[in-house]
Amino acid sequence: MTPAFEKLQKQLRQLPGLGFRSAERIALHLLVEKPARLPELVEALQAAAATVRRCPRCGNLAEDGLCAICADERREQGVVCVVEHVPDLVAMERSGAYRGVYHVLHGRLSPIQGVRPEDLNFEALFSRVADGGVRELILALSNDVEGEATCHYLTQHLPAPANGVEVKTTRIGFGLPSGGGVLYADSVTLKSALDGRRHYE
Amino acid sequence: MTPAFEKLQKQLRQLPGLGFRSAERIALHLLVEKPARLPELVEALQAAAATVRRCPRCGNLAEDGLCAICADERREQGVVCVVEHVPDLVAMERSGAYRGVYHVLHGRLSPIQGVRPEDLNFEALFSRVADGGVRELILALSNDVEGEATCHYLTQHLPAPANGVEVKTTRIGFGLPSGGGVLYADSVTLKSALDGRRHYE
Repeated sequence: MTPAFEKLQKQLRQLPGLGFRSAERIALHLLVEKPARLPELVEALQAAAATVRRCPRCGNLAEDGLCAICADERREQGVVCVVEHVPDLVAMERSGAYRGVYHVLHGRLSPIQGVRPEDLNFEALFSRVADGGVRELILALSNDVEGEATCHYLTQHLPAPANGVEVKTTRIGFGLPSGGGVLYADSVTLKSALDGRRHYE
Repeated sequence: MTPAFEKLQKQLRQLPGLGFRSAERIALHLLVEKPARLPELVEALQAAAATVRRCPRCGNLAEDGLCAICADERREQGVVCVVEHVPDLVAMERSGAYRGVYHVLHGRLSPIQGVRPEDLNFEALFSRVADGGVRELILALSNDVEGEATCHYLTQHLPAPANGVEVKTTRIGFGLPSGGGVLYADSVTLKSALDGRRHYE
C-alpha cells in the first residue's frame, strides 16, 4: 500500500499470534474503518508503558508500590509460588486454584542462551526468605533441563530465615507435561499439578 | 493486573480478530517480554496516522498525491473497478487477476443504516467518468440488496463522458457467493468472478 502502512503492518506482525493477513486487517481497521481508535490505542500503549513497572517485592506487574497480589491481605503471604514469567502467573491466577503469592524470576538459568543467576530476580526472593516471611516455596518452573537447573540453583542458594523456621520447598509436578511450561497448561492440569506437588531437595 | 494494563488490553480487544486471551498475550509481550517494541509500535501507528490519507482520484490509501495504483502507468487506467472498501481492493490485488485501476466508495447505500449517496465517494467517480478517462466500469460491490441498490444508483447517475465514448458498465458476478462481499472471497473465486462479469443496466 504505502510505506507508512507497510511499516505499521510490519510492526504488528511482530506481535505474538499475528500473521501477515491479521496484521494487514488490523492496520486497515485502524487507518480506514475506525481511525478514531488509533489515537486511543496509542494513548493506552503510552500510559501503560509510563505507569506499569515491576512490583518491588515479587516482580509482577504493578503501578505504584506493591502489585495487587502482594497488597491483598486475603492471600496467604507466607506461601510463595516461584514462576519464570508474568504470563505464567496469569495462567496460575486463571486456574483459580492458588491462594498464595508469587515471585517472578523473569526467566530461567540457561548457559546456552547466556542467562546467568545475576540476570534473574533471585536476590529479592532470597531477601524475602531471609526476612522470615516465607513458610513454603512452590517452584512452578518449566519441566525441562533449564527449569530443573534453576530449581537446583535456587535451593542451593536459599538463605537461612532470620526466625529459624525451616522453609518447606516443593516443586510443582503432577500433571505438567514434559518439555512444557506453565503458560500452555490448562486450568485442570494446573490444579492437579498444585495438588500433586512434592518435596524438592 | 493493573488499571493501565487492563485499559491497554481493552483497546487491543477491540481490534479485529483479537479476543481476550490474544489481547492479554500481546499486552504482556509489549510490557514485559519486548518492551523495546512498544515505542516502535507507537511510532509506526503515529507515522501512519499522520501520513496515510485518501488518494484524491480513487479513495485508496495514499501518502503524497496519487496512490501507488493510480500512479502506475502500467495499469490500465481506463478500466475502473468500483469497490466498497479498501480491504476489498487489497483482496482484489491479492488475486493478481486484475490489471486496471480502482474506485473506493468507502461504503454502500443503506437506508436502514442511514448511509446516503452524499456519504459515499460518488462525486469523484462521476468526475472521472465525465472527464472521459473511463472505458469500462466493473462494479465489484457486494452480492446483496445494498450492493445491488448501490449499483443501481451508480448507473442511474452516471454522467455522459465529455468525449462521447460510451462507458461499458459490468457487474462482477460469476463466483461471488450470495450474501458475501469481496473481502472474504478467495483468489480463485475472485478470478472467476472477474472472468464471468456481465453487462449491467
